[in-house]
Amino acid sequence: MDITAEMVKELRQRTGIGVMECKTALQESKGDIEKAILILRKKGHARAKEKMGRETGEGTVGSYIHLNGKIGVLVEVNCESDFVSRNEEFKELVKNIAMHIAAANPQYVSSEDVPKKVMEQESEIIREQFKDSDKPPEIIEKIVQGKLGKFFQDVCLLEQAYIKDDKISVKELIASFIAKVGENIKVRRFARFELGKP
Amino acid sequence: MDITAEMVKELRQRTGIGVMECKTALQESKGDIEKAILILRKKGHARAKEKMGRETGEGTVGSYIHLNGKIGVLVEVNCESDFVSRNEEFKELVKNIAMHIAAANPQYVSSEDVPKKVMEQESEIIREQFKDSDKPPEIIEKIVQGKLGKFFQDVCLLEQAYIKDDKISVKELIASFIAKVGENIKVRRFARFELGKP
Repeated sequence: MDITAEMVKELRQRTGIGVMECKTALQESKGDIEKAILILRKKGHARAKEKMGRETGEGTVGSYIHLNGKIGVLVEVNCESDFVSRNEEFKELVKNIAMHIAAANPQYVSSEDVPKKVMEQESEIIREQFKDSDKPPEIIEKIVQGKLGKFFQDVCLLEQAYIKDDKISVKELIASFIAKVGENIKVRRFARFELGKP
Repeated sequence: MDITAEMVKELRQRTGIGVMECKTALQESKGDIEKAILILRKKGHARAKEKMGRETGEGTVGSYIHLNGKIGVLVEVNCESDFVSRNEEFKELVKNIAMHIAAANPQYVSSEDVPKKVMEQESEIIREQFKDSDKPPEIIEKIVQGKLGKFFQDVCLLEQAYIKDDKISVKELIASFIAKVGENIKVRRFARFELGKP
């Protein structure tokens, strides 16, 4: 199948990635745009991983007010350079993360931020459900780990399914942006106030 | 001196208080607008005090982003009715409080929110400065109380001098709004993120 200029253009617009890479991905996916996005996303992850250890001293604090002031979110997103923090697409990323937090109500940024006590409590609750089961302990432990992963997907911002595209997590949303701009990006902290709620 | 309609109008615009009360205040102040404002403010405080015990289940969450994203503030301000929370002047009050927080960097909403440990530490530091003084202990205790009051003015939002008008505290700003709308208003909580700062 022929890869047309229109297809390359659409893929570029949707991913922000260079012409040659888009063309290669489309050839690999035999012209299937969605598959090509997946291919680019995987490559992006590999590239993002290289950047993820780097210092992030710049960034921006963004906010989002929902439902005429019933919910408000403040979020600090860090990047490496002032150049990226002033970039309109970076600001849009920050806005999208703030909107996501307003809608999905995470409790922590990442699974590393979940207090040990909360994790132990959660594991205990899961284990309790299997206390009369005849499954071997190592199987139960695997189930506990799996359910803990599910718990992180519920309460940790980075593990949550992104509200605007639930095929990716917020972590993957950020990783594709890292691949695009070639700088490490980190959500440092957020606050979410819901009127009258704790 | 005659109280003109223009003077009453100006006083009304600056305080939002009814014609008759403005006229009486101007007669009392012999036409001095600034003095009349002070008179009305004192009356407003008396009126505000009546309201201050009342339940506040409505309100709004507002935000303010400063210096192109270097500082961000989120604040929840509660009132009694949906009618007030939808009011443009209430929203402006919330915005002004958020701006104040961005500039003045308070650590707590009110002096009641200062942890006991912090207060004890602060008192200890002040007492330490007088340990070689020959002042009687009861005088030193008075100085400590006075300096603690100053400490609250530094770190507590409600005690801080309002950035847009340092002749009043934020508490007084809110009290005059309570007197104006006849509803209790409370700052419930705030978050302030400064890029790269703790």
